[in-house]
Amino acid sequence: MAIKLYWGSGSPFAWRVMLTLEVKTLAYESKLLEFSKGDHKTPAYLQLNPRGKVPTLKDGDFAVYESIAIMAYLDRKYPEPPLFGQTPQETGLIWQTISECESYLVGEGNKIVRPVFFGKGLDKVEEIQQAAQTIRQEWKSIDARLARSNWLVGGQISAADIAVFPMVQLLLRAVSKEAARPLNLGLRPLSQVYPNIARWVQQIESLPGYERTYPPHWR
Amino acid sequence: MAIKLYWGSGSPFAWRVMLTLEVKTLAYESKLLEFSKGDHKTPAYLQLNPRGKVPTLKDGDFAVYESIAIMAYLDRKYPEPPLFGQTPQETGLIWQTISECESYLVGEGNKIVRPVFFGKGLDKVEEIQQAAQTIRQEWKSIDARLARSNWLVGGQISAADIAVFPMVQLLLRAVSKEAARPLNLGLRPLSQVYPNIARWVQQIESLPGYERTYPPHWR
Repeated sequence: MAIKLYWGSGSPFAWRVMLTLEVKTLAYESKLLEFSKGDHKTPAYLQLNPRGKVPTLKDGDFAVYESIAIMAYLDRKYPEPPLFGQTPQETGLIWQTISECESYLVGEGNKIVRPVFFGKGLDKVEEIQQAAQTIRQEWKSIDARLARSNWLVGGQISAADIAVFPMVQLLLRAVSKEAARPLNLGLRPLSQVYPNIARWVQQIESLPGYERTYPPHWR
Repeated sequence: MAIKLYWGSGSPFAWRVMLTLEVKTLAYESKLLEFSKGDHKTPAYLQLNPRGKVPTLKDGDFAVYESIAIMAYLDRKYPEPPLFGQTPQETGLIWQTISECESYLVGEGNKIVRPVFFGKGLDKVEEIQQAAQTIRQEWKSIDARLARSNWLVGGQISAADIAVFPMVQLLLRAVSKEAARPLNLGLRPLSQVYPNIARWVQQIESLPGYERTYPPHWR
């Protein structure tokens, strides 16, 4: 098979690429790396991706990493359906949404996800609360956009939806953990607090192939 | 004039867009915002960009913000010369370089630039030194790439060069300030430590229109 995807279970960045591959109905060989075994730090893997992170995609002889870059590559090489817009305006707004996701959701999300999943830094309550405050504000604005439209930009799924979705799922999983309950971070129940995001999540969950992208260790 | 650019002097993000406009030889109306006067927080500006940051681009009735998104919009609307690659592989590597810049250069760079320019946090020597260590590593790898090729990706200037360049200039300016000297951050003199980056900087500085993009308050 020409395309190989190196990924890790639960990596929201790898999830983006898996969704992209499914939406484009591209077959690929799955290379699941076990972080606990150090699969991402072997000399062979570091040859493909010197940063030792996931995801990395190999297409024939060509290797590329960084989730957003892989999505842009796949869209250029396999243009159907187009994920980066049908018009220059859509392209601009899709990248705007992705940039905002990277700048405001990913970093702040990490301040919640890491302590909750790994137990370290759970005592930095103020920092976690502040991050949650930012996330609530971002989700509120995403919810308002999804009240007006089924998808974040334009009339069909785009790279904007695919970039944001795994971050939402990861945060939802974090705040539903026992360790997060006493912090009252206020992102759930999703269907009550952010009903339009909830509908959009369901919409993505019902895409053909979605089940194949779901992190195996989350089941 | 159809295109209006809202920018601030010294913003590396605005600088990216100005370089993009020059490389594409697009005429635009310059809207220089004075941060000290709060120009970026007026109701009229927040209407265009609710985050109150720069840059924002208006093209006719269409407004878009986030530097990378503006670059992608301009490239789609005004494709010559193409800045996001001539092949899917180039597209992938350009976005990979941009993603790496956003993840490793921008955040770490801020840990040096902010204390040096604004005086706050200059006592966090360890954090600054650690950031400088990351930057040195990133620059070393950029220097190695530029030893093999005139441009970061492919045979001509691309969005990768344009995204990285203002970050390099901003850091160079920071480490040459009096306040940074005692910290010995090791990024200069550029032509000795990173000779290929130095050559690449000169190459960009000699682009037609470059002078128009240079931050006025840096002169």
